[in-house]
Amino acid sequence: MAKTRIVFILYPRLTQLDFTGPYEVLARVPNTEVIIASKDGGVLKTEMGLTFTDLAKLSDVSSADMIMIPGGPGQTEAMQDADFMAEVKRLGAGARYITSVCTGSLILAAAGLITGKRAGSHWAYRELLSMFGAIPDDARVVRDGNVITGGGVTAGIDIALTIAAELAGDDVAKMIQLAIEYAPAPPFNSGRPELAEEKTVAAVKQLFSAFAQQRREAIEHMTGTA
Amino acid sequence: MAKTRIVFILYPRLTQLDFTGPYEVLARVPNTEVIIASKDGGVLKTEMGLTFTDLAKLSDVSSADMIMIPGGPGQTEAMQDADFMAEVKRLGAGARYITSVCTGSLILAAAGLITGKRAGSHWAYRELLSMFGAIPDDARVVRDGNVITGGGVTAGIDIALTIAAELAGDDVAKMIQLAIEYAPAPPFNSGRPELAEEKTVAAVKQLFSAFAQQRREAIEHMTGTA
Repeated sequence: MAKTRIVFILYPRLTQLDFTGPYEVLARVPNTEVIIASKDGGVLKTEMGLTFTDLAKLSDVSSADMIMIPGGPGQTEAMQDADFMAEVKRLGAGARYITSVCTGSLILAAAGLITGKRAGSHWAYRELLSMFGAIPDDARVVRDGNVITGGGVTAGIDIALTIAAELAGDDVAKMIQLAIEYAPAPPFNSGRPELAEEKTVAAVKQLFSAFAQQRREAIEHMTGTA
Repeated sequence: MAKTRIVFILYPRLTQLDFTGPYEVLARVPNTEVIIASKDGGVLKTEMGLTFTDLAKLSDVSSADMIMIPGGPGQTEAMQDADFMAEVKRLGAGARYITSVCTGSLILAAAGLITGKRAGSHWAYRELLSMFGAIPDDARVVRDGNVITGGGVTAGIDIALTIAAELAGDDVAKMIQLAIEYAPAPPFNSGRPELAEEKTVAAVKQLFSAFAQQRREAIEHMTGTA
Protein backbone atom coordinates (compact mmCIF):
# COMPACT_ATOMS: atom_id res chain seq x y z
CA MET A 1 0.00 0.00 0.00
CA ALA A 2 1.33 3.45 -0.89
CA LYS A 3 2.08 5.64 2.10
CA THR A 4 -0.21 8.56 2.84
CA ARG A 5 1.78 11.68 2.05
CA ILE A 6 1.15 14.47 4.56
CA VAL A 7 2.57 17.83 3.49
CA PHE A 8 2.99 20.54 6.14
CA ILE A 9 2.89 23.85 4.30
CA LEU A 10 4.98 26.40 6.21
CA TYR A 11 5.67 30.11 5.76
CA PRO A 12 7.76 32.70 7.65
CA ARG A 13 6.60 33.94 11.08
CA LEU A 14 4.17 31.11 11.68
CA THR A 15 3.43 30.09 15.27
CA GLN A 16 5.74 27.13 15.63
CA LEU A 17 3.54 25.12 18.05
CA ASP A 18 0.72 25.21 15.46
CA PHE A 19 3.02 23.02 13.41
CA THR A 20 5.16 21.16 15.95
CA GLY A 21 2.18 19.88 17.98
CA PRO A 22 0.52 18.09 15.04
CA TYR A 23 3.90 17.10 13.59
CA GLU A 24 4.76 15.17 16.77
CA VAL A 25 1.51 13.21 16.43
CA LEU A 26 1.40 12.69 12.66
CA ALA A 27 5.06 11.67 12.35
CA ARG A 28 4.11 8.68 14.55
CA VAL A 29 1.28 7.43 12.33
CA PRO A 30 2.29 4.25 10.48
CA ASN A 31 2.26 4.21 6.66
CA THR A 32 2.63 7.95 6.30
CA GLU A 33 5.31 10.06 4.68
CA VAL A 34 5.60 13.48 6.28
CA ILE A 35 7.03 16.32 4.20
CA ILE A 36 7.76 19.76 5.66
CA ALA A 37 7.79 22.36 2.91
CA SER A 38 7.87 26.10 2.32
CA LYS A 39 7.90 28.30 -0.77
CA ASP A 40 11.67 28.66 -0.85
CA GLY A 41 12.63 25.49 1.03
CA GLY A 42 15.69 25.43 3.30
CA VAL A 43 15.63 27.73 6.32
CA LEU A 44 12.47 29.20 7.87
CA LYS A 45 12.24 31.51 10.90
CA THR A 46 9.10 31.31 13.03
CA GLU A 47 7.24 33.95 15.05
CA MET A 48 9.34 33.89 18.23
CA GLY A 49 12.68 33.19 16.57
CA LEU A 50 12.96 29.39 16.50
CA THR A 51 14.36 28.50 13.08
CA PHE A 52 13.90 25.29 11.07
CA THR A 53 16.13 24.07 8.29
CA ASP A 54 16.18 21.35 5.59
CA LEU A 55 12.65 22.17 4.45
CA ALA A 56 11.51 20.95 1.05
CA LYS A 57 10.53 23.45 -1.63
CA LEU A 58 6.78 23.43 -2.30
CA SER A 59 7.27 23.45 -6.06
CA ASP A 60 9.34 20.25 -5.72
CA VAL A 61 6.49 18.42 -3.97
CA SER A 62 4.65 16.59 -6.74
CA SER A 63 1.45 15.88 -4.81
CA ALA A 64 -0.09 15.48 -1.37
CA ASP A 65 -2.68 13.13 0.10
CA MET A 66 -3.16 15.60 2.95
CA ILE A 67 -2.13 19.21 3.33
CA MET A 68 -1.85 20.78 6.77
CA ILE A 69 -1.34 24.52 7.21
CA PRO A 70 -0.51 26.04 10.61
CA GLY A 71 -1.37 29.60 11.64
CA GLY A 72 0.53 32.55 13.00
CA PRO A 73 1.25 36.24 12.43
CA GLY A 74 2.90 35.51 9.08
CA GLN A 75 -0.41 34.15 7.79
CA THR A 76 -1.53 37.61 6.70
CA GLU A 77 1.44 38.04 4.40
CA ALA A 78 1.37 34.42 3.21
CA MET A 79 -2.23 34.58 1.95
CA GLN A 80 -1.25 37.60 -0.17
CA ASP A 81 1.76 35.87 -1.75
CA ALA A 82 0.56 34.72 -5.17
CA ASP A 83 3.37 32.18 -5.69
CA PHE A 84 2.80 30.63 -2.27
CA MET A 85 -0.96 30.51 -2.79
CA ALA A 86 -0.55 28.88 -6.22
CA GLU A 87 1.28 26.00 -4.51
CA VAL A 88 -1.40 25.74 -1.81
CA LYS A 89 -4.08 25.55 -4.51
CA ARG A 90 -2.16 23.00 -6.58
CA LEU A 91 -1.44 20.65 -3.66
CA GLY A 92 -4.88 21.19 -2.12
CA ALA A 93 -6.66 20.39 -5.39
CA GLY A 94 -5.19 16.89 -5.46
CA ALA A 95 -5.40 16.14 -1.74
CA ARG A 96 -7.85 13.74 -0.09
CA TYR A 97 -7.71 15.77 3.14
CA ILE A 98 -7.53 19.53 3.59
CA THR A 99 -6.44 20.41 7.12
CA SER A 100 -5.19 23.32 9.19
CA VAL A 101 -4.55 24.57 12.69
CA CYS A 102 -5.40 28.03 14.03
CA THR A 103 -5.37 30.81 11.39
CA GLY A 104 -4.05 28.33 8.84
CA SER A 105 -7.74 27.97 7.92
CA LEU A 106 -7.69 31.54 6.57
CA ILE A 107 -5.10 30.40 4.02
CA LEU A 108 -7.31 27.44 3.05
CA ALA A 109 -10.25 29.84 2.76
CA ALA A 110 -8.27 32.37 0.72
CA ALA A 111 -7.25 29.54 -1.63
CA GLY A 112 -10.89 28.66 -2.20
CA LEU A 113 -10.38 25.19 -0.73
CA ILE A 114 -13.08 25.41 1.98
CA THR A 115 -15.79 27.57 0.42
CA GLY A 116 -19.14 26.74 2.00
CA LYS A 117 -17.48 24.44 4.54
CA ARG A 118 -17.55 24.74 8.32
CA ALA A 119 -14.10 25.53 9.70
CA GLY A 120 -12.37 26.46 12.95
CA SER A 121 -9.67 29.03 13.60
CA HIS A 122 -8.05 30.86 16.50
CA TRP A 123 -10.87 32.39 18.60
CA ALA A 124 -9.65 35.94 17.97
CA TYR A 125 -9.81 35.64 14.17
CA ARG A 126 -12.43 32.95 13.58
CA GLU A 127 -15.15 35.28 12.27
CA LEU A 128 -12.89 36.43 9.43
CA LEU A 129 -13.45 33.05 7.74
CA SER A 130 -16.88 34.19 6.60
CA MET A 131 -15.33 36.98 4.50
CA PHE A 132 -13.94 34.21 2.28
CA GLY A 133 -17.19 32.23 2.23
CA ALA A 134 -16.28 29.60 4.81
CA ILE A 135 -18.50 29.03 7.86
CA PRO A 136 -16.85 29.78 11.24
CA ASP A 137 -17.32 27.01 13.83
CA ASP A 138 -16.15 27.40 17.43
CA ALA A 139 -15.37 23.71 18.08
CA ARG A 140 -11.83 22.72 19.00
CA VAL A 141 -11.78 20.16 16.18
CA VAL A 142 -14.05 20.89 13.22
CA ARG A 143 -14.73 18.28 10.59
CA ASP A 144 -16.74 18.93 7.44
CA GLY A 145 -16.25 16.11 4.96
CA ASN A 146 -12.59 15.96 4.01
CA VAL A 147 -11.85 19.31 5.70
CA ILE A 148 -10.43 19.00 9.23
CA THR A 149 -9.59 22.27 10.99
CA GLY A 150 -9.94 23.65 14.51
CA GLY A 151 -9.02 26.19 17.16
CA GLY A 152 -5.85 28.10 17.97
CA VAL A 153 -2.29 26.83 18.49
CA THR A 154 -2.60 23.95 21.00
CA ALA A 155 -5.78 22.69 19.30
CA GLY A 156 -3.40 21.24 16.73
CA ILE A 157 -2.67 18.30 19.03
CA ASP A 158 -6.37 17.42 19.28
CA ILE A 159 -6.81 17.95 15.53
CA ALA A 160 -3.86 15.67 14.79
CA LEU A 161 -5.08 12.88 17.08
CA THR A 162 -8.43 13.04 15.26
CA ILE A 163 -6.57 12.76 11.94
CA ALA A 164 -4.42 9.88 13.28
CA ALA A 165 -7.61 7.97 14.11
CA GLU A 166 -9.02 8.72 10.66
CA LEU A 167 -5.87 7.48 8.90
CA ALA A 168 -4.90 4.52 11.08
CA GLY A 169 -7.79 3.75 13.42
CA ASP A 170 -8.64 4.57 17.03
CA ASP A 171 -6.21 2.03 18.50
CA VAL A 172 -3.22 3.70 16.84
CA ALA A 173 -4.37 7.18 17.88
CA LYS A 174 -4.71 5.96 21.48
CA MET A 175 -1.20 4.51 21.40
CA ILE A 176 0.20 7.82 20.17
CA GLN A 177 -1.70 9.68 22.88
CA LEU A 178 -0.17 7.40 25.52
CA ALA A 179 3.32 7.65 23.99
CA ILE A 180 3.23 11.46 24.21
CA GLU A 181 1.53 11.29 27.63
CA TYR A 182 -1.29 13.54 26.53
CA ALA A 183 -3.40 13.74 29.66
CA PRO A 184 -3.43 17.52 29.88
CA ALA A 185 -3.77 19.25 33.24
CA PRO A 186 -3.63 23.01 32.67
CA PRO A 187 -2.78 24.85 35.91
CA PHE A 188 -5.44 27.48 35.07
CA ASN A 189 -8.83 27.40 33.37
CA SER A 190 -8.17 30.19 30.92
CA GLY A 191 -7.90 28.54 27.52
CA ARG A 192 -10.97 30.03 25.82
CA PRO A 193 -12.66 33.43 26.06
CA GLU A 194 -15.78 31.76 27.52
CA LEU A 195 -13.67 30.27 30.34
CA ALA A 196 -11.15 33.04 31.04
CA GLU A 197 -11.62 36.00 33.37
CA GLU A 198 -12.94 39.14 31.74
CA LYS A 199 -9.74 41.08 32.42
CA THR A 200 -7.67 38.30 30.81
CA VAL A 201 -9.83 38.34 27.67
CA ALA A 202 -9.60 42.14 27.48
CA ALA A 203 -5.82 42.09 27.88
CA VAL A 204 -5.26 39.45 25.20
CA LYS A 205 -7.67 41.16 22.78
CA GLN A 206 -5.68 44.34 23.30
CA LEU A 207 -2.44 42.47 22.52
CA PHE A 208 -3.97 41.05 19.34
CA SER A 209 -5.82 44.17 18.18
CA ALA A 210 -3.22 45.34 15.67
CA PHE A 211 -2.99 41.86 14.10
CA ALA A 212 -6.78 41.58 13.94
CA GLN A 213 -7.11 44.95 12.22
CA GLN A 214 -4.30 44.12 9.79
CA ARG A 215 -5.87 40.76 8.90
CA ARG A 216 -9.32 42.26 8.38
CA GLU A 217 -7.97 45.02 6.12
CA ALA A 218 -5.94 42.53 4.08
CA ILE A 219 -9.00 40.33 3.54
CA GLU A 220 -11.16 43.34 2.65
CA HIS A 221 -8.56 44.28 0.08
CA MET A 222 -8.37 40.73 -1.31
CA THR A 223 -12.12 40.21 -1.48
CA GLY A 224 -13.04 43.74 -2.56
CA THR A 225 -15.28 44.18 0.47
CA ALA A 226 -13.65 47.32 1.87
CA MET B 1 15.48 44.85 36.07
CA ALA B 2 17.69 42.30 34.33
CA LYS B 3 15.79 39.82 32.19
CA THR B 4 15.45 36.25 33.40
CA ARG B 5 17.64 34.16 31.12
CA ILE B 6 16.03 30.82 30.25
CA VAL B 7 18.40 28.40 28.53
CA PHE B 8 16.91 25.43 26.67
CA ILE B 9 19.61 22.76 26.59
CA LEU B 10 19.15 20.62 23.48
CA TYR B 11 20.88 17.51 22.14
CA PRO B 12 20.46 15.33 19.02
CA ARG B 13 17.41 13.04 18.70
CA LEU B 14 15.39 14.78 21.38
CA THR B 15 11.59 14.66 21.14
CA GLN B 16 10.89 18.02 19.57
CA LEU B 17 7.53 18.66 21.28
CA ASP B 18 9.23 18.27 24.68
CA PHE B 19 11.03 21.49 23.72
CA THR B 20 8.64 23.29 21.36
CA GLY B 21 5.64 23.09 23.74
CA PRO B 22 7.39 24.89 26.63
CA TYR B 23 9.22 27.18 24.20
CA GLU B 24 5.92 28.51 22.83
CA VAL B 25 4.84 29.38 26.38
CA LEU B 26 8.11 30.68 27.81
CA ALA B 27 8.97 32.83 24.78
CA ARG B 28 5.80 34.79 25.63
CA VAL B 29 6.76 35.58 29.25
CA PRO B 30 7.72 39.25 29.63
CA ASN B 31 11.21 40.15 30.87
CA THR B 32 12.78 36.91 29.81
CA GLU B 33 15.58 36.15 27.39
CA VAL B 34 15.24 32.71 25.83
CA ILE B 35 18.39 31.02 24.54
CA ILE B 36 18.28 27.73 22.61
CA ALA B 37 21.62 25.96 22.88
CA SER B 38 23.34 22.67 22.14
CA LYS B 39 26.87 21.36 22.61
CA ASP B 40 27.96 22.22 19.09
CA GLY B 41 25.50 25.01 18.30
CA GLY B 42 24.14 25.49 14.78
CA VAL B 43 22.07 22.66 13.35
CA LEU B 44 20.34 19.97 15.41
CA LYS B 45 18.21 17.08 14.14
CA THR B 46 15.42 15.79 16.37
CA GLU B 47 13.92 12.32 16.82
CA MET B 48 11.49 12.30 13.89
CA GLY B 49 13.63 14.37 11.51
CA LEU B 50 12.58 17.97 12.15
CA THR B 51 15.79 20.01 12.16
CA PHE B 52 16.53 23.28 13.97
CA THR B 53 19.26 25.74 13.09
CA ASP B 54 20.90 28.88 14.53
CA LEU B 55 21.33 27.29 17.95
CA ALA B 56 23.80 28.85 20.38
CA LYS B 57 26.79 26.85 21.56
CA LEU B 58 26.48 25.85 25.23
CA SER B 59 30.07 26.85 25.97
CA ASP B 60 29.26 30.36 24.69
CA VAL B 61 26.40 30.79 27.18
CA SER B 62 27.93 32.54 30.18
CA SER B 63 25.15 31.75 32.65
CA ALA B 64 21.48 30.84 33.06
CA ASP B 65 18.78 31.88 35.51
CA MET B 66 16.81 28.82 34.47
CA ILE B 67 17.83 25.71 32.58
CA MET B 68 15.22 23.56 30.86
CA ILE B 69 16.10 20.18 29.40
CA PRO B 70 13.66 18.26 27.17
CA GLY B 71 13.60 14.46 26.83
CA GLY B 72 13.71 12.02 23.97
CA PRO B 73 15.56 8.97 22.66
CA GLY B 74 18.83 10.92 22.39
CA GLN B 75 18.79 11.44 26.15
CA THR B 76 20.59 8.14 26.75
CA GLU B 77 23.55 9.20 24.65
CA ALA B 78 23.50 12.79 25.92
CA MET B 79 23.83 11.80 29.61
CA GLN B 80 26.96 9.81 28.70
CA ASP B 81 28.60 12.69 26.83
CA ALA B 82 31.11 14.17 29.30
CA ASP B 83 31.49 17.50 27.47
CA PHE B 84 27.73 17.98 27.24
CA MET B 85 27.24 17.05 30.89
CA ALA B 86 29.98 19.46 31.98
CA GLU B 87 27.98 22.30 30.41
CA VAL B 88 24.76 21.09 32.06
CA LYS B 89 26.51 21.06 35.44
CA ARG B 90 28.11 24.48 34.92
CA LEU B 91 24.87 26.20 33.85
CA GLY B 92 22.78 24.28 36.40
CA ALA B 93 25.10 25.22 39.27
CA GLY B 94 24.44 28.92 38.73
CA ALA B 95 20.73 28.70 37.90
CA ARG B 96 17.89 29.76 40.17
CA TYR B 97 15.57 27.21 38.55
CA ILE B 98 16.37 23.68 37.39
CA THR B 99 13.66 22.41 35.05
CA SER B 100 12.97 19.63 32.57
CA VAL B 101 10.29 17.88 30.55
CA CYS B 102 9.93 14.11 30.13
CA THR B 103 13.21 12.16 30.32
CA GLY B 104 15.13 15.45 30.49
CA SER B 105 14.96 14.84 34.26
CA LEU B 106 17.32 11.87 33.82
CA ILE B 107 19.93 14.32 32.53
CA LEU B 108 19.37 16.58 35.55
CA ALA B 109 19.66 13.52 37.78
CA ALA B 110 22.81 12.27 36.05
CA ALA B 111 24.33 15.74 36.51
CA GLY B 112 23.69 15.54 40.26
CA LEU B 113 21.39 18.58 40.10
CA ILE B 114 18.32 16.92 41.67
CA THR B 115 19.76 14.43 44.16
CA GLY B 116 17.23 13.80 46.92
CA LYS B 117 14.59 15.85 45.10
CA ARG B 118 11.19 14.70 43.88
CA ALA B 119 11.00 14.73 40.08
CA GLY B 120 8.74 13.66 37.24
CA SER B 121 9.59 11.97 33.95
CA HIS B 122 7.89 10.11 31.11
CA TRP B 123 5.75 7.35 32.70
CA ALA B 124 7.73 4.59 30.95
CA TYR B 125 11.09 5.71 32.39
CA ARG B 126 10.16 7.50 35.61
CA GLU B 127 11.41 4.81 38.01
CA LEU B 128 14.94 5.11 36.58
CA LEU B 129 15.31 8.43 38.41
CA SER B 130 15.86 6.58 41.68
CA MET B 131 19.03 4.96 40.28
CA PHE B 132 20.57 8.46 40.36
CA GLY B 133 19.20 9.29 43.82
CA ALA B 134 16.23 11.41 42.75
CA ILE B 135 12.70 10.54 43.92
CA PRO B 136 10.23 9.59 41.15
CA ASP B 137 6.88 11.39 41.37
CA ASP B 138 3.99 10.59 39.04
CA ALA B 139 2.43 14.08 38.97
CA ARG B 140 2.15 15.88 35.63
CA VAL B 141 3.96 18.90 37.09
CA VAL B 142 6.34 18.22 39.97
CA ARG B 143 7.78 21.01 42.05
CA ASP B 144 10.39 20.50 44.74
CA GLY B 145 11.90 23.83 45.74
CA ASN B 146 13.64 25.32 42.72
CA VAL B 147 13.31 22.07 40.74
CA ILE B 148 10.32 21.98 38.36
CA THR B 149 9.92 18.82 36.28
CA GLY B 150 7.02 16.64 35.14
CA GLY B 151 5.61 13.99 32.86
CA GLY B 152 6.24 13.03 29.26
CA VAL B 153 6.23 15.17 26.09
CA THR B 154 2.96 17.15 26.24
CA ALA B 155 3.36 17.72 30.00
CA GLY B 156 5.84 20.39 28.95
CA ILE B 157 3.00 22.81 28.23
CA ASP B 158 1.60 22.41 31.74
CA ILE B 159 5.09 22.64 33.24
CA ALA B 160 5.79 25.83 31.28
CA LEU B 161 2.53 27.50 32.31
CA THR B 162 3.43 26.73 35.94
CA ILE B 163 6.83 28.33 35.35
CA ALA B 164 5.24 31.34 33.61
CA ALA B 165 3.10 31.91 36.71
CA GLU B 166 6.17 31.58 38.95
CA LEU B 167 8.17 34.10 36.89
CA ALA B 168 5.50 36.64 35.98
CA GLY B 169 2.39 35.91 38.06
CA ASP B 170 -0.87 34.06 37.50
CA ASP B 171 -2.41 36.82 35.36
CA VAL B 172 0.34 36.60 32.79
CA ALA B 173 0.19 32.79 32.70
CA LYS B 174 -3.57 32.98 32.13
CA MET B 175 -3.08 35.43 29.26
CA ILE B 176 -0.59 33.09 27.62
CA GLN B 177 -2.98 30.16 28.06
CA LEU B 178 -5.73 32.14 26.33
CA ALA B 179 -3.40 33.33 23.56
CA ILE B 180 -2.43 29.75 22.70
CA GLU B 181 -6.05 28.60 23.19
CA TYR B 182 -5.02 25.91 25.64
CA ALA B 183 -8.37 24.34 26.52
CA PRO B 184 -7.39 20.78 25.62
CA ALA B 185 -10.04 18.32 24.45
CA PRO B 186 -8.32 15.02 23.64
CA PRO B 187 -10.51 12.85 21.40
CA PHE B 188 -9.57 9.80 23.51
CA ASN B 189 -8.86 9.20 27.19
CA SER B 190 -5.59 7.40 26.74
CA GLY B 191 -2.90 9.78 27.97
CA ARG B 192 -1.62 7.84 30.99
CA PRO B 193 -1.23 4.13 31.68
CA GLU B 194 -3.85 4.38 34.48
CA LEU B 195 -6.37 5.76 31.96
CA ALA B 196 -5.54 3.81 28.79
CA GLU B 197 -6.88 0.40 27.81
CA GLU B 198 -4.73 -2.56 28.83
CA LYS B 199 -3.97 -3.50 25.22
CA THR B 200 -2.85 0.09 24.47
CA VAL B 201 -0.49 0.09 27.45
CA ALA B 202 0.92 -3.29 26.45
CA ALA B 203 1.46 -2.18 22.84
CA VAL B 204 3.26 1.06 23.80
CA LYS B 205 5.41 -0.72 26.42
CA GLN B 206 6.40 -3.15 23.69
CA LEU B 207 7.35 -0.25 21.39
CA PHE B 208 9.45 1.31 24.15
CA SER B 209 11.02 -1.87 25.51
CA ALA B 210 14.33 -1.57 23.66
CA PHE B 211 14.74 2.06 24.75
CA ALA B 212 13.87 1.19 28.33
CA GLN B 213 16.42 -1.62 28.43
CA GLN B 214 19.09 0.58 26.83
CA ARG B 215 18.48 3.39 29.31
CA ARG B 216 18.58 1.05 32.31
CA GLU B 217 21.84 -0.55 31.18
CA ALA B 218 23.42 2.84 30.52
CA ILE B 219 22.50 4.02 34.00
CA GLU B 220 23.73 0.79 35.60
CA HIS B 221 27.03 1.33 33.81
CA MET B 222 27.23 4.98 34.89
CA THR B 223 26.33 4.33 38.52
CA GLY B 224 28.18 1.03 38.88
CA THR B 225 25.00 -0.80 39.86
CA ALA B 226 25.12 -3.48 37.17
